[in-house]
Order: sequence, then C-alpha cells, then structure tokens
Amino acid sequence: MTYCVGMMMDEGLVFLADSRTNAGVDQINSFRKLTLFERAGDRVLVLLSAGNLAITQAVIAILKRRLDAEDGTGNLMAAKSMFDAAELVGEALRFVYARDARALKDHNVEFNASFVLGGQIRGEAPRMFSIYAAGNFIEATDDTRYFQIGESKYGKPIIDRMITATSSLKEAAKCALVSMDSTIRSNLSVGPPLDMVLIKTDTLSVHHHVRINVDDEYFQTIRIRWGRALRQAFADLPDPPFA
Amino acid sequence: MTYCVGMMMDEGLVFLADSRTNAGVDQINSFRKLTLFERAGDRVLVLLSAGNLAITQAVIAILKRRLDAEDGTGNLMAAKSMFDAAELVGEALRFVYARDARALKDHNVEFNASFVLGGQIRGEAPRMFSIYAAGNFIEATDDTRYFQIGESKYGKPIIDRMITATSSLKEAAKCALVSMDSTIRSNLSVGPPLDMVLIKTDTLSVHHHVRINVDDEYFQTIRIRWGRALRQAFADLPDPPFA
Repeated sequence: MTYCVGMMMDEGLVFLADSRTNAGVDQINSFRKLTLFERAGDRVLVLLSAGNLAITQAVIAILKRRLDAEDGTGNLMAAKSMFDAAELVGEALRFVYARDARALKDHNVEFNASFVLGGQIRGEAPRMFSIYAAGNFIEATDDTRYFQIGESKYGKPIIDRMITATSSLKEAAKCALVSMDSTIRSNLSVGPPLDMVLIKTDTLSVHHHVRINVDDEYFQTIRIRWGRALRQAFADLPDPPFA
Repeated sequence: MTYCVGMMMDEGLVFLADSRTNAGVDQINSFRKLTLFERAGDRVLVLLSAGNLAITQAVIAILKRRLDAEDGTGNLMAAKSMFDAAELVGEALRFVYARDARALKDHNVEFNASFVLGGQIRGEAPRMFSIYAAGNFIEATDDTRYFQIGESKYGKPIIDRMITATSSLKEAAKCALVSMDSTIRSNLSVGPPLDMVLIKTDTLSVHHHVRINVDDEYFQTIRIRWGRALRQAFADLPDPPFA
C-alpha cells in the first residue's frame, strides 16, 4: 500500500508521500510516488499516486511522454488551469483502463489507482484535486483542506485536529510528518524514505523538495518527541471514575 | 459501521463498543453491540459485534436461545473453555450463513460480520478471540493484546503506543475511550452512546459495566483535554528545518 497526503493552506501547499510498495509481504520495494512538474514562474504541479503500481506508473509515463508531444495534446505543461490538468490525469487513467482493464480482470486484479494533484498555474490560485480510478475527480475547497490516498485512516485524526486554512506551511509539514509517523507505526505496508514538497502560494515554484530517509534527524526527532509527548499527555488525563 | 475494541492485560479485560449503525447515511440508528454473558463466580463473557446488523443480531439471538436449550448443545454458559465458546460463536455464524448467504447474494449484500469474544471461565486464564465471518478465529497472545473490529484504523495508533500486558485496567479504559474519540471525530458512522465493560482477572464477574452517553462528564473531559494536550504537544514539536 501507500500513504500520501496533500494539504492546501492560504500560505501554500504541502505534499508528502511514502515510497513502499508491496505485492504480498514478500515482495517489498521502494518507488517514488511523488512526481513534480515545474516550470518556475509559470506553474508547479505535484502528482501523488496510490494503488496498483503498474497502473500509476503507466499514467505517469503517459503524462511525461505527452510533455514532448508535438501538437501539445494532453500536455500538463500546456494546461490552462489546474482543472484542465486534473482532466488530463483523468484522461491518462482512462487510456490505461482501456488498455489494461480487461487483462487485469482476467487475472482477478482490481483496477485500483488514485491520485492527488495539486499546484498552481499562473493566473489562478493554488488548487488541489483528488482523482479516482474512473478518472473523475473532486476539488479541495475552503471546507476541505486536504486529501489523502492509500492507507489514509491511521493518520487522519491528527490532520482533522490540526490543519485549517490558516495553518502555516511549517505547521502543515510537521503535521504531515506526524500523520505519516502514526501510519508507519500501525501499517507495515507504508514506509520510508518519504518525499516532501512545499509550495508557497504565488511563487509558482517549489519552495522545498526533500527526501526524508529513515535516519533523517528531524523526522527522528518528531517521532521520538511525539511519542513521548503522547505518553505524557495520556498519563496526564484523569483516570476513569469507574475503574 | 461500528468501532469495537477488546483489550487483554494481566490485570484484566476491557471492552468498548459504539452503538451507531447505518444503512446509508439517511438511516442511522442506535443498537447495542456489546453483549454480556455472566454467571458470577463461574464465568463472564463479552461479545462485541460488527458488520451487517441482521447477521450479528441473528447470531446473538441464536446464542441466547441456546442458553435455554434442554440438551445444552451450543450453550455458551456450558462451554468448558473460552476456546469452546469461540467455536460456538463460529458455529452460530455458520448457521446464519447457511440460512441467509444465498438470499443476501441475490441482493448483492456481502455476508459481513465479525466478533470479538473475551472473558474468563473458571479453571482457565482470561482469553480473547477475534472471530471472522467464516466462523474461524484467532486468539490474543502475549504479543497481541487487543482486537478491534469495524472502523479500526483511526483509533489503532494510540493503542499501539499505549497498551502493554502491564497496563492497568484504568489505563486501558482511558486508552479505549481516547481511541474511540479519535474514531468518532474522523468517521461519521461511529457514534455514542458507548458501552464499556471491565473485568478483573480471576474475579469471574463484571467489575464495571457502564453506558457512556455523549454528555457523559468523564468522556467529555477526556475529549476536551486530549484535544488540548495534542494541540499543545504538536505546538511544542520543533518546526521543520526546511520550511
């Protein structure tokens, strides 16, 4: 499995992805699940992927191939809006579905793939989309500031508690890492190294792009101190009156 | 959906269940998902249920009916061990499967049901089982001290961090409520009132059985103080060096 999260605050966007893939527990590998499309000053797009790796890699390969297409059809770098870009991802997904779905069905493999696409294209505000296997998608709004794909439930409570429109990029990055830590602890199929991208609103470029390994000093600090703080907070809660 | 958790510590057992059921979002009801079988001094058994309510209610009705069976067949109160009791729950499940599964399939309804059975029967130590829809089951061991059924993922990280064999009954009860709080906040299909049962090892009776409503003072305190403590702990974590 996978855990990826994208968050959209007034200050900018934060994306975090793990890199573990597994086909059963005896075939575990590391693959990048965060893909960056950037032309500084014009646009910056981040695509997070979850699901069947053959499908998501095919979608990304198609999107990359189309960057060089002579007629510009399906080119993310030519999309006029983030909405158009989300449509292009959906179209690529439908292309792969048309090509592979029947063969996968013959082998009882579900057509399972999902994406989070976020970023900013010059002329509009930052936007973020959650794209389903059918190629349809929803957009983040003022009320819903984040999307998760993959093993999303373990790390959801902390985001629900912490992230609002006015959260800073720093807070959101920290929260994404705490959310990832909870997921990694509870689910073997999610693991480092992690890929994180931060984008500041209206800069139209990547503010920070970092690969976080298991021995990364900051991530280790977060893991240890968060665990310790939780144990302390838990100990400080009053005991039940009935026990 | 549902969220139920059973924990087995050296000091005893803790069980917690929500009571929300839903068939779609427009048909939400409250049903008890914790069933108690007790003959003080001889045995105390708690059965937590999740899944299709018609199935789980049928299983429990069958188990209750068999308490009065003249020949004692399938009677939980006559089971010689917790293992035998788990087998009886599995058998009741298979009885319902044989009766209902084909009709459910005709209506594209999955045969979805799972149980946690825990307790103690005189002559053996406390034991706890997780029983699947097929009627097979696994038993908690020294290494795995808790079972969850239903919407288990949101509330799993806090249990993974806090519960060990030496956790006290008070700590476990507190942890179960914090775990439930995280689940309720992140998933609409889980909700109060809650049912909680505490059993002390070798007492062969219920130590405490409490129904916790949404306005319960202790649960409210936990919810408010845990949220506040998490926000404080989060704020105290160092900011990322790269943001």
